[in-house]
Amino acid sequence: MQEQQLRVGLIGAGRMGADHALRIRERISGARLAVVADPDLDRAQQVAGSCGARGTAEAHEVIDDSTVDAVVIASPGSVHEPLLLAAIERGLPVLCEKPLTPDAKSSLRVVEAEEARGKHLVQVGFMRRFDAEFAELKRLLDVGDLGAPLMLHCVHRNASTPPGFTSEMMIYDSVVHEFDTARWLLGSEIEAVTVRAPRSSSGSPEGLLDPQLVTFETSSGALVDVEIFVNCGFGYQVRCEAVGERGTALVGADGGPLVHRSGGWGGTISDDFRDRFGDAFDREFQRWADAAHQGRTDPNAASTWDGYAAAAACEAGVQAQSTGTRAEVDLRERPDFYAL
Amino acid sequence: MQEQQLRVGLIGAGRMGADHALRIRERISGARLAVVADPDLDRAQQVAGSCGARGTAEAHEVIDDSTVDAVVIASPGSVHEPLLLAAIERGLPVLCEKPLTPDAKSSLRVVEAEEARGKHLVQVGFMRRFDAEFAELKRLLDVGDLGAPLMLHCVHRNASTPPGFTSEMMIYDSVVHEFDTARWLLGSEIEAVTVRAPRSSSGSPEGLLDPQLVTFETSSGALVDVEIFVNCGFGYQVRCEAVGERGTALVGADGGPLVHRSGGWGGTISDDFRDRFGDAFDREFQRWADAAHQGRTDPNAASTWDGYAAAAACEAGVQAQSTGTRAEVDLRERPDFYAL
Amino acid sequence: MQEQQLRVGLIGAGRMGADHALRIRERISGARLAVVADPDLDRAQQVAGSCGARGTAEAHEVIDDSTVDAVVIASPGSVHEPLLLAAIERGLPVLCEKPLTPDAKSSLRVVEAEEARGKHLVQVGFMRRFDAEFAELKRLLDVGDLGAPLMLHCVHRNASTPPGFTSEMMIYDSVVHEFDTARWLLGSEIEAVTVRAPRSSSGSPEGLLDPQLVTFETSSGALVDVEIFVNCGFGYQVRCEAVGERGTALVGADGGPLVHRSGGWGGTISDDFRDRFGDAFDREFQRWADAAHQGRTDPNAASTWDGYAAAAACEAGVQAQSTGTRAEVDLRERPDFYAL
Amino acid sequence: MQEQQLRVGLIGAGRMGADHALRIRERISGARLAVVADPDLDRAQQVAGSCGARGTAEAHEVIDDSTVDAVVIASPGSVHEPLLLAAIERGLPVLCEKPLTPDAKSSLRVVEAEEARGKHLVQVGFMRRFDAEFAELKRLLDVGDLGAPLMLHCVHRNASTPPGFTSEMMIYDSVVHEFDTARWLLGSEIEAVTVRAPRSSSGSPEGLLDPQLVTFETSSGALVDVEIFVNCGFGYQVRCEAVGERGTALVGADGGPLVHRSGGWGGTISDDFRDRFGDAFDREFQRWADAAHQGRTDPNAASTWDGYAAAAACEAGVQAQSTGTRAEVDLRERPDFYAL
Repeated sequence: MQEQQLRVGLIGAGRMGADHALRIRERISGARLAVVADPDLDRAQQVAGSCGARGTAEAHEVIDDSTVDAVVIASPGSVHEPLLLAAIERGLPVLCEKPLTPDAKSSLRVVEAEEARGKHLVQVGFMRRFDAEFAELKRLLDVGDLGAPLMLHCVHRNASTPPGFTSEMMIYDSVVHEFDTARWLLGSEIEAVTVRAPRSSSGSPEGLLDPQLVTFETSSGALVDVEIFVNCGFGYQVRCEAVGERGTALVGADGGPLVHRSGGWGGTISDDFRDRFGDAFDREFQRWADAAHQGRTDPNAASTWDGYAAAAACEAGVQAQSTGTRAEVDLRERPDFYAL
Repeated sequence: MQEQQLRVGLIGAGRMGADHALRIRERISGARLAVVADPDLDRAQQVAGSCGARGTAEAHEVIDDSTVDAVVIASPGSVHEPLLLAAIERGLPVLCEKPLTPDAKSSLRVVEAEEARGKHLVQVGFMRRFDAEFAELKRLLDVGDLGAPLMLHCVHRNASTPPGFTSEMMIYDSVVHEFDTARWLLGSEIEAVTVRAPRSSSGSPEGLLDPQLVTFETSSGALVDVEIFVNCGFGYQVRCEAVGERGTALVGADGGPLVHRSGGWGGTISDDFRDRFGDAFDREFQRWADAAHQGRTDPNAASTWDGYAAAAACEAGVQAQSTGTRAEVDLRERPDFYAL
Repeated sequence: MQEQQLRVGLIGAGRMGADHALRIRERISGARLAVVADPDLDRAQQVAGSCGARGTAEAHEVIDDSTVDAVVIASPGSVHEPLLLAAIERGLPVLCEKPLTPDAKSSLRVVEAEEARGKHLVQVGFMRRFDAEFAELKRLLDVGDLGAPLMLHCVHRNASTPPGFTSEMMIYDSVVHEFDTARWLLGSEIEAVTVRAPRSSSGSPEGLLDPQLVTFETSSGALVDVEIFVNCGFGYQVRCEAVGERGTALVGADGGPLVHRSGGWGGTISDDFRDRFGDAFDREFQRWADAAHQGRTDPNAASTWDGYAAAAACEAGVQAQSTGTRAEVDLRERPDFYAL
Repeated sequence: MQEQQLRVGLIGAGRMGADHALRIRERISGARLAVVADPDLDRAQQVAGSCGARGTAEAHEVIDDSTVDAVVIASPGSVHEPLLLAAIERGLPVLCEKPLTPDAKSSLRVVEAEEARGKHLVQVGFMRRFDAEFAELKRLLDVGDLGAPLMLHCVHRNASTPPGFTSEMMIYDSVVHEFDTARWLLGSEIEAVTVRAPRSSSGSPEGLLDPQLVTFETSSGALVDVEIFVNCGFGYQVRCEAVGERGTALVGADGGPLVHRSGGWGGTISDDFRDRFGDAFDREFQRWADAAHQGRTDPNAASTWDGYAAAAACEAGVQAQSTGTRAEVDLRERPDFYAL
């Protein structure tokens, strides 16, 4: 049975796509790359060549290729919608890097297409759901040892941002992870978002509101606060403390070798999300490939609905950021097809 | 010189007053109790007797007593004002348990009286300023290694509340410590307060908004958030993470013996603030007595102005809590007499 | 290229073998099980069946099978020698669970056979070399930031032992990991071993010397001490602190979610080595399969020589244990074929 | 009652003596310095002057002074014996810095003198018994939650040594603390000592065996190992892990603000024992003064017997160090007068 490997088509051969190609080639069982698409054909062929796959400049060719069993989308969010709709039409399992699409309206169209198709096909790449620590936190909350969750305190820090990074992208690219994490941990939807900012760091680019304090209310009544600081200067940190009625649990404390030497004691800080969440990405891909083999999606993974709900929360977040007031999340009623 | 011990009058012989009597008797050098006042004369005499002092039911008798060199006020906040004004008039050094007085208006009268007297006499009992970890955090911020501070994330948890504890008291009795801590650490005033609450814990008394998320803006542009949770069920926790432009520092992580046994690894949690801040109280009293010997107040301690500023922030906090909106802090301009 | 999967023959379908079968099927890329051997044919067929492989009762059939590209040996150590010699003769890459063989003499015969064959074929399953934390510790020592290593303090604890576990097995099955870890971290051979024991725990089976304190001297001059405690009752712990001339580094501190609740703060303890070192096993297997594809062994993995050196140290350890005195390790001179 | 302060005579005005003078003046209640003796009269007068005491060059004058209620001995160990004997004869409470005397024979004479006097007068300055963490560790062992103790793993590191520090002093001055700590925590005597050393650190002075691994056996059957490393270069560290039949407990993990900044996360390391054990010294002195007021010694403190037993263990330690073999501790039978 395992002899038939899942033949994967990869759309997008940038940094993320290339990482995923390596992941499929070296760390995942039961799957291999068959074709890689990128508008930059050289890049497509380079990534493809390292994996014994073929390269193409046409993304839709991947979806139309009859030798492709499943698709990984790692191209920019702006081109996701038509690809997702085509894959759904062909009944192909998809692992789509976040965001599902850039806005809630287009995400909803994908939701409706999948619902109409009547089969769960799309998984969104919120990899924290596959991180061992976050998974243990979810387990702790689910078994109820901490009592009902009342608050989440989140910290999300990056060393620095690439040129052109905007305050809005801090919501769409960064806080979107906390939106999904909170929805998943709490099992509830986000209802409203507020954004506050202290004076910006002198280490952040001119004009960027950095850091920000994002708070959001959820349908369960739990409140979430997020420090997002994308030019903290010292590394990548993701921390989440759940406060329950009877106890609290924190993930994201620093690990690794504990060193003592002149200057003090301590350890190193992750450079970036690839370093911190490498194992989570591996697990995400393995479980996706395993599920795709069986013609289903992983129930723990983020669904199309989750991608849509995250997009809706981001829209409210950006609105809250620009107006300085609380913004409500506008979300369609959840269809039965998507159980939480 | 040390042969002349500072003769201290203690007003209030309740739990806090009795603790302070013990502190002066056993752990502080250069001071001794001369007289103890409490409306409950038995209680006054019991505490006084254990220290070789005399007891009285009349608080003002302590201040009028010519054998008293300095006064500790540990009675309820509602009776502080006239005692403070009398002590200032007599030129007596005072260590006044928080709050200075119950509201900003009366606190301001004490400020004005002290300013008129032209001599710093009153020290307010914000003991965290004398905690070794908080002091080290302040030092880190002051030397500038972390860059300018942008945010403080605070957590303040109590196991449970006594009967009759109200949502307003969570601001006046609990968050007041974070108001002072933030002002002290940041060297800036609080300008506005916002209060948000998730659904309340089922472990908290009916009607109490518990926990709450209090955020406040400061004149330095730094933003502060505080989780106040007074029925968390498991113990006493005070944590503060300062986020600077170039680094962060956290105090209040758990210490003590690290135990491994069946069920897991870990340690114990402080029972209450006396346990957690016992050393800080000792240091606060010792430094107050040392300064009083020299006819001055400790520059690190909270001044009358600090007590007034905390009262003003509390008023804004309670207003923000009841209206659900941001409330600005109404603070007189700081006179030169009180340098930050 | 990756299309040709490495066809793996597995010898031994007990708990460890079944784990490795699952590993190859689900978490490793580029390899698949072709045949599984176990004297218990039902067990062999059950494990084989779950992986689309065939089962057999004859271990040597695996090695003689022309469709097998590489072999995993997970059978008892007592039967390893002839299997290893046969695999070497056929030029097959082997991943052999520790021990290489049960004693230094037979291990040396395997060393000599491989040396005579002139090709590195055998890798011994010391999985700590693939653990992220231990690898980082090795990197720290190799770059020299801590100065030359002077001591290692090791702790190795198991919750409990299966029936029949003996004091000698504490050396052969448990401390053997520290022998390999020390040789690898320090890049030097073990020269002498001493074993001391306090009174045994009442929680350990009658007659078992448990815990023990094993110290050993290395050719680099560094000294290693190991607490081995196989009935500690509370879980599985592996800790190692390297003490260098200019600093120290500790791996194996407890991680996972940090929980606060009634009773204290803390986290969970690993149940067993599969839990603690699961990722290390995955990495070990992936790198072995990758190297086998290229007809070589992984340079970081334990070689036949390392297996032999560990066996020699174990013999000295058991001798030291029985005599109560220091026992020297009797090791052949290392041939050039096996660079450290 | 508190009005009568304990009038303390201090012998020795070096670094340690001056520290203790400051301690008595500023942080201890109910005691004051009356006279300070030091062969260097200037130094004596300087320390005395800062405390309103008188200075003298004659140590015995302190003991003969009828205005002295109790004596602190902080002079070199070589001159302790006659001072202790004189104080015992006069019935004066003594707090004697370790060592009691430089060797077991002279220590035994002090034991016999005190026993003959029939009154506990002497307390030896093993301050760890007053450290909050060590006290909690003792409590954990005493209540039995961890089961009977089987092993102690100790680490004792100093940044560097003063000129002239010898391998023997590593036992007499440093490991002597672990001898007392182990006796106190385990409630049992030390029976034999073994000393092993790796090659010495290039950061240690020529000729010094540094670090060393000292192991000792106790009458309870528990085994203790100590890493003593007095030129570790990075700071002062004292760590102790107790391994019980059902659990373990570790004290001495690093605390203080947890900082994240460029270069990593971590905290600072104590500079020296004054920094790490300052609070313990304060508590030791306060309890000694309180007990002296009542004409007794503190039952938690180290007694004359404890000083003698430590000296005997040191002698065995130095013998083990020089011979490279196990050395038995030669200890008189404990008289009833000194209950453990």
